[in-house]
Amino acid sequence: MHFPTVALVGKYHDTGIAAPLLALAHMLRAAGRKVLFEKDTAINIGVQDFPVASVAEIGAEASLAVVMGGDGTMLGLARQLAPYDVPLVGINHGRVGFITDIPLDKSVQALSEVIEGNFSSDERLLLEGKVFRGDQELFSGPALNDVVLSRASMGGMIEINVHVDGEFMSQQRADGLIIATPTGSTAYALSSNGPILHPSLRGMVLVPVAPQALSNRPIALPDTCTIDITIIRCAGSSKGGASVHFDMQSFSSLQAGDRIVVRRGKHTIRFLHPAGYSYFSTLRRKLHWNQNPSDPTSSLDS
Amino acid sequence: MHFPTVALVGKYHDTGIAAPLLALAHMLRAAGRKVLFEKDTAINIGVQDFPVASVAEIGAEASLAVVMGGDGTMLGLARQLAPYDVPLVGINHGRVGFITDIPLDKSVQALSEVIEGNFSSDERLLLEGKVFRGDQELFSGPALNDVVLSRASMGGMIEINVHVDGEFMSQQRADGLIIATPTGSTAYALSSNGPILHPSLRGMVLVPVAPQALSNRPIALPDTCTIDITIIRCAGSSKGGASVHFDMQSFSSLQAGDRIVVRRGKHTIRFLHPAGYSYFSTLRRKLHWNQNPSDPTSSLDS
Amino acid sequence: MHFPTVALVGKYHDTGIAAPLLALAHMLRAAGRKVLFEKDTAINIGVQDFPVASVAEIGAEASLAVVMGGDGTMLGLARQLAPYDVPLVGINHGRVGFITDIPLDKSVQALSEVIEGNFSSDERLLLEGKVFRGDQELFSGPALNDVVLSRASMGGMIEINVHVDGEFMSQQRADGLIIATPTGSTAYALSSNGPILHPSLRGMVLVPVAPQALSNRPIALPDTCTIDITIIRCAGSSKGGASVHFDMQSFSSLQAGDRIVVRRGKHTIRFLHPAGYSYFSTLRRKLHWNQNPSDPTSSLDS
Amino acid sequence: MHFPTVALVGKYHDTGIAAPLLALAHMLRAAGRKVLFEKDTAINIGVQDFPVASVAEIGAEASLAVVMGGDGTMLGLARQLAPYDVPLVGINHGRVGFITDIPLDKSVQALSEVIEGNFSSDERLLLEGKVFRGDQELFSGPALNDVVLSRASMGGMIEINVHVDGEFMSQQRADGLIIATPTGSTAYALSSNGPILHPSLRGMVLVPVAPQALSNRPIALPDTCTIDITIIRCAGSSKGGASVHFDMQSFSSLQAGDRIVVRRGKHTIRFLHPAGYSYFSTLRRKLHWNQNPSDPTSSLDS
Repeated sequence: MHFPTVALVGKYHDTGIAAPLLALAHMLRAAGRKVLFEKDTAINIGVQDFPVASVAEIGAEASLAVVMGGDGTMLGLARQLAPYDVPLVGINHGRVGFITDIPLDKSVQALSEVIEGNFSSDERLLLEGKVFRGDQELFSGPALNDVVLSRASMGGMIEINVHVDGEFMSQQRADGLIIATPTGSTAYALSSNGPILHPSLRGMVLVPVAPQALSNRPIALPDTCTIDITIIRCAGSSKGGASVHFDMQSFSSLQAGDRIVVRRGKHTIRFLHPAGYSYFSTLRRKLHWNQNPSDPTSSLDS
Repeated sequence: MHFPTVALVGKYHDTGIAAPLLALAHMLRAAGRKVLFEKDTAINIGVQDFPVASVAEIGAEASLAVVMGGDGTMLGLARQLAPYDVPLVGINHGRVGFITDIPLDKSVQALSEVIEGNFSSDERLLLEGKVFRGDQELFSGPALNDVVLSRASMGGMIEINVHVDGEFMSQQRADGLIIATPTGSTAYALSSNGPILHPSLRGMVLVPVAPQALSNRPIALPDTCTIDITIIRCAGSSKGGASVHFDMQSFSSLQAGDRIVVRRGKHTIRFLHPAGYSYFSTLRRKLHWNQNPSDPTSSLDS
Repeated sequence: MHFPTVALVGKYHDTGIAAPLLALAHMLRAAGRKVLFEKDTAINIGVQDFPVASVAEIGAEASLAVVMGGDGTMLGLARQLAPYDVPLVGINHGRVGFITDIPLDKSVQALSEVIEGNFSSDERLLLEGKVFRGDQELFSGPALNDVVLSRASMGGMIEINVHVDGEFMSQQRADGLIIATPTGSTAYALSSNGPILHPSLRGMVLVPVAPQALSNRPIALPDTCTIDITIIRCAGSSKGGASVHFDMQSFSSLQAGDRIVVRRGKHTIRFLHPAGYSYFSTLRRKLHWNQNPSDPTSSLDS
Repeated sequence: MHFPTVALVGKYHDTGIAAPLLALAHMLRAAGRKVLFEKDTAINIGVQDFPVASVAEIGAEASLAVVMGGDGTMLGLARQLAPYDVPLVGINHGRVGFITDIPLDKSVQALSEVIEGNFSSDERLLLEGKVFRGDQELFSGPALNDVVLSRASMGGMIEINVHVDGEFMSQQRADGLIIATPTGSTAYALSSNGPILHPSLRGMVLVPVAPQALSNRPIALPDTCTIDITIIRCAGSSKGGASVHFDMQSFSSLQAGDRIVVRRGKHTIRFLHPAGYSYFSTLRRKLHWNQNPSDPTSSLDS
């Protein structure tokens, strides 16, 4: 039997998901699976008939985690579950997301297929970032989307040195620098003119935000590289210094001399998709491809 | 009485416009206007009860021209009517265009309003381009959208010198160079990363296509400027040389040494819009603004 | 006699400018001009033989102001002198800037020419920005480069509504929005993929910073437009809200509901250049045009 | 002994390389290597004392090929030598290139080091492209930089369908589409806003040229993918159809219905570099990084 124990997790404080999550739970129970409700989700939607578990307990027991919410909810849980190697399925309660690719109204059927073994799987790179001041590690954490170094809002550009595997790459002045995984390449990095990286590409991409040098372009690197960023200059701490974000977790008050080191994490995350899933189909829908403005210059268009 | 004589023009070879164009004609006649059908349109849709006129006759007699088709049809007629100062109204038979901004199903009502004086008007810059070989003028013509200099498909990049009002601006190597009016700024120039110019901005924009220098950026100039482009190097004539397009009219086989001179034309074109028209509304619809992909990195989104 | 009273202003706390500024002062006195040293500059470099004046006194008395420093110094003084209509000349003590276009080693000769009437002049648009909370005006000021609305560093994207002359233009989600003059179009706006606006173009440009919608492009508007930006959502004030910058002056802690209104200021600024000045020459030098990487694909290159 | 037989190849028709190539030849002979001059090179510079060989003979006999010229010369020879697995060293006779990274004045010393075993090596992906009309293969060839599909110069945009590993990716309308290797990512693809791919990234990138859809972005894929492009619409053959380039080899007169299939080639190319070589150093020099225009908005700059 595939996935004997399935955990259900819902977007925090979203009561609209109660009915569809319970529908999934009953379908899973009817199919002979043990169902665990994540603790806060259970409180949120008033679950009574099913066992409740913390994220750590889900990590230990569940063979599949189903997330209902938006990409942000999925991102948050995936980061927490990363050490446990529990695969995830994402159901979107609104418009379909990049990583919550199952629409709500098809969730029962899609999940039925998944637990019958009718699914595809893709494995996503997780970055591990650390912040150092001198020899002291100030902060560390995983990132499924991106590590983002930013200027403080009051502080003008930041100036950094970037080394890759110990080799000097460049000195940059910019609003910030994004280090994105393939998963994150369609998030913030895309807004800053970064390329899309297919999830199966074993790489990551450095995307400058508002770089002063007009020839400063995104650069994609193998995911085996270690990126080492040293802050050369930023606004003083009275003005907020600089800050770094690991997905949604922030660390502020970075100073000149601080270093951010980013490398591939020990763990990866596995997303499952019902049969028929297409990454490109998600791209087309999310990016409105094939909804082009007409072009009056084209002789094909007349 | 506003617009005593109204000309009707349809997209070439499009028979689907017969019924709606005739509906407009009957409405106009009922409103006491003289209706002229453009000659080819009349043949195309089999008009019998209305007088027929050439474009030149329309220019001489009509006080308003109504175009049904796409932006390309509108562009073609506007260029021809430019010397006659006849204002134009554009009705789109498909998806609404940038300059054919009235949807077909609202055309009778919209035109009724326009002929009652309930309209706004905007005046569009027309460029005048000329191609010289030595002292000889090889080609000239108007451009409502853009003048585009391009490499031949077989020929590698072109290298050009650009002067503005006699002053040297830059030497460029690229696939091509677009000189766009505000009207053309939402056409081909936009695909090459050019900015949008509002129609009431008295300017034009030079947009390089695939420029070799990464710092080569679009530059907007006052519409009083004269742009003078000299081809320094391009593929030999056996490989197709370079070519220049004035909207949809092409001139090929340009050689090294040839010059393209672009300046504001003597005439402008006036587009009329029914009351309530909004340029920004057209932009939003055509560019799919406010249909954003969700952003999993945003803390606003959770 | 041209420019009977000339004010001299130096970069704050830069003692390297003492000798060249005094050389200018002696040349000017020898040429029969009254020389005024700006107060802080005089203290900074230890001026003894020349009268000293505040910026307001310079505004009242001087017929020309000469600034030695970088573009930032020039920007700061130009903003302060704007109400007085005193033309400015900029001398760069380091690499030549966009608006400090005279190199230090040519400053005596260049200024000699200017005071003999051998100069060209260009007039620069100054924006006037105001920040409102409800009916209350919180902050206002001029901007020669740009008005920049930014997210707080901790706060995710901001969401804004933009109106132009009272008409709704768009709802945007982004890191920020830049409203740049032609002068500012080669500063921060250029880093965010904005176009260059020639100083004589009577326009300004709205440039989104890291916009979520991929079709959100820079848009150039006539300089007669009033831009009205309402903050729909931003990080809460505990996370720093949003901030706005008028050139280098910042106002922080903006909240949802706050409005920023930007229009052409009452004053303009006049920059004088010695004969032979070329805006395009400055562009070429600053943007490294004509220093292209070679292109191995080009058949022109082989 | 490393590299017992070394072939020397010079840029076609460039006589300036005679002396430095002969200097290399004498150094190599003195170091006990057998030296082969490529046939056309030998004729071009009048070689008399050394054996002469065709490219095929070089492929069969040489253990190292040294190319003196520009990136184009290197590209051409690398493609021809690909089946023979002979590593290449590139010496630039002008400005240093991306793949001819040894400056002429250091060529003797650099090559001495290489033949003593003091070198690093990187292996470059080679694409294999094929053009099909129905079942018929019209054209095929290798590409070290890129496969470029382009509109004819007379013909308006092309419309294509792109499949990746048999899965539909997108329908695109554009001037063209570039499929670039990491090596080609710094050539034409970079001009069309593509990202830089590090040579050790096992990927390739699809970069649209002037795409009509503003959300059409570069997408990087694993180098194991097969890209299948079908031309849906292009200008008629009387207007030149479409064309495809494999590095510098062109095939024209493509029609609607034709297919271009691109996948990783069977062979790779090995470039050798003297000790101390840095890819990032080449990037910095070629892209003028760290030569930023000053930024008057930055508070770091004052």
